[in-house]
Amino acid sequence: MSFIHNWLRADIQEINAYHVPCSDNLIKLDAMESPFALPDELISQYLAYLADAQLNRYPSPSAEELNQTLRDLMDIPKEFGVLLGNGSDELIQLLALACDTDDTILSIEPSFVMYDMIAKFTRLNYQGVSLTQDYKLDLNSILESINKHKPKLIFIAYPNNPTGNTFDRIAIEKIINMTDAMVVLDEAYYAYAGDSFISDIAKYPNLVVLRTVSKIGFAGLRLGLLISSQEMVSELDKLRLPYNINILTQVSANFLLKEKDEINKNAAIIIEQRQILSDALKQIEGLLAYPSQANFILFKAPKAQELFDYLKANGILIKNLSGAPKLTNCLRVTVGDNDQNKQFISIVKEFYSLKMNNND
Amino acid sequence: MSFIHNWLRADIQEINAYHVPCSDNLIKLDAMESPFALPDELISQYLAYLADAQLNRYPSPSAEELNQTLRDLMDIPKEFGVLLGNGSDELIQLLALACDTDDTILSIEPSFVMYDMIAKFTRLNYQGVSLTQDYKLDLNSILESINKHKPKLIFIAYPNNPTGNTFDRIAIEKIINMTDAMVVLDEAYYAYAGDSFISDIAKYPNLVVLRTVSKIGFAGLRLGLLISSQEMVSELDKLRLPYNINILTQVSANFLLKEKDEINKNAAIIIEQRQILSDALKQIEGLLAYPSQANFILFKAPKAQELFDYLKANGILIKNLSGAPKLTNCLRVTVGDNDQNKQFISIVKEFYSLKMNNND
Repeated sequence: MSFIHNWLRADIQEINAYHVPCSDNLIKLDAMESPFALPDELISQYLAYLADAQLNRYPSPSAEELNQTLRDLMDIPKEFGVLLGNGSDELIQLLALACDTDDTILSIEPSFVMYDMIAKFTRLNYQGVSLTQDYKLDLNSILESINKHKPKLIFIAYPNNPTGNTFDRIAIEKIINMTDAMVVLDEAYYAYAGDSFISDIAKYPNLVVLRTVSKIGFAGLRLGLLISSQEMVSELDKLRLPYNINILTQVSANFLLKEKDEINKNAAIIIEQRQILSDALKQIEGLLAYPSQANFILFKAPKAQELFDYLKANGILIKNLSGAPKLTNCLRVTVGDNDQNKQFISIVKEFYSLKMNNND
Repeated sequence: MSFIHNWLRADIQEINAYHVPCSDNLIKLDAMESPFALPDELISQYLAYLADAQLNRYPSPSAEELNQTLRDLMDIPKEFGVLLGNGSDELIQLLALACDTDDTILSIEPSFVMYDMIAKFTRLNYQGVSLTQDYKLDLNSILESINKHKPKLIFIAYPNNPTGNTFDRIAIEKIINMTDAMVVLDEAYYAYAGDSFISDIAKYPNLVVLRTVSKIGFAGLRLGLLISSQEMVSELDKLRLPYNINILTQVSANFLLKEKDEINKNAAIIIEQRQILSDALKQIEGLLAYPSQANFILFKAPKAQELFDYLKANGILIKNLSGAPKLTNCLRVTVGDNDQNKQFISIVKEFYSLKMNNND
């Protein structure tokens, strides 16, 4: 047996490396990215700003200016603390590392797969609690599971990925109130949602909110943030690796994320497009589109795998979840711009009309 | 007691947040940065290249082009695997996460503090083995400690930080041969050293080499790499967080790190300057400069704390290690450019001549 297979713990060896499908020359509606590139007139100003970055020097360790830029963009009150990470993933991992040996992470299912994966990476227990058939929180099951497993950390994506819905706020408040765990509300899709738990941080000492700039036009930056009380953040900050946010990210975000009007305008377009896309999907017979507060729509479709393949053959990549637990026949489409959404709908319609004819 | 102080494990709460001293308006000779900024003619080409980066899209998950750029820059044979991280720190943490509960990390002391810190972050045991009085490997002590503690991971910085020397190659080979641990040679300062273990990867299945671009002009990028067998890398890759290297780092490094001649030319200047700086320090009575294979020099100085303060008051920031274990009266100066080094030496001389006069 080779050294590494003898050396590495079995649960990591058993992981199948995550395969990102090739998207060359495809319209990407698979990854919740914003369809909007930087406006040309902004690019030249941005590059001029970046010219002054001192690449031979370590970045600011505390990234104070970026911290302030994000507070301004997301209206984060100054009495809360903000901790930055390379994507929310780094912050989820930091929270898991703050836990102790034998601790348990609890989350709902289906949800963002990294909660489970990072529990494994950090040698913690993981407990998943199923959502109801229509992807709502099953409060009783969650409270039972909390009582039984005494989790140290609870992750709730709000809105949830891949289902797209937010959950009952009262149910979440009950969870926060009755658990000794730190409760992490992952608001990756906040820009497209009608509700947020940020202001609740003042009320609940065990509440943490995660956000990211990935879904609002800056997936390439890999910049996530954790928001909680100042005291919570200054303790968690001890686990942050030094200089974790590089100088390019700091300088770029300090220029680009100050374009609050542009970012908000783009989010409003996506919310409008989401409605159009959802209405169009609902008009297709046999297809069930779930309500969404995010920049994507989950839908259950007859012959989901075939539809996915047909879309891909016609130049559009979406996400095929039809093989995943509790997501039989489900596909997820990111809301694109008007043209992309029109193309997508047209190909879906074409697929089903071909199918109908073949069945005649 | 507040929530977080009740919730967070005690060993993390006890950490004092790492304080980076303010360096505004100071000549920075404290952090092993390269003194060389990008040449002006390169900046405009670089920014033009960066203009095409699609910031609204996730970066390449495998960063294949960057992988190849680093192979070309560092002459890494194609039969080895390369894994990228946000600084070596992320890779050290990934290796620690690959270990199992109750495993032990072994390193030498004094050395890079993050081996110990990251063992704590990842809930592993840490065992430090002292170097000899003149900062050489104490092979017998290390072999004894390996027998006693059965480490899973051994970190050896080569050249070592903060001492600057490389160690006896034969001793390291003995360690690699006689342990069941994965042995990690941290070659952060490879560009200034006369030896490397990269080609030894072909010989030793338990050998891993770490490198970084931080000390060769690109500390701001926070880009580190792990080099080992293809098989080792593909297993360790399962622990890497998705899309960990952002698009700015990938695109920037793909342009900037292709300037191999420029990078090598700058390294040659630093090696030459190191000799001049070392000779100058040795001429100062009572001052002991240790041999260096890195871009910094450790020296033992009478009245070290006072000298450090005097340098700072005169506009030069170096690193004060005089309070650290086994480093009594030691200071560490990064090799700067010719002007910076001259200024540094001149202020050191001034300090001691003032002291001598005061003592008269």
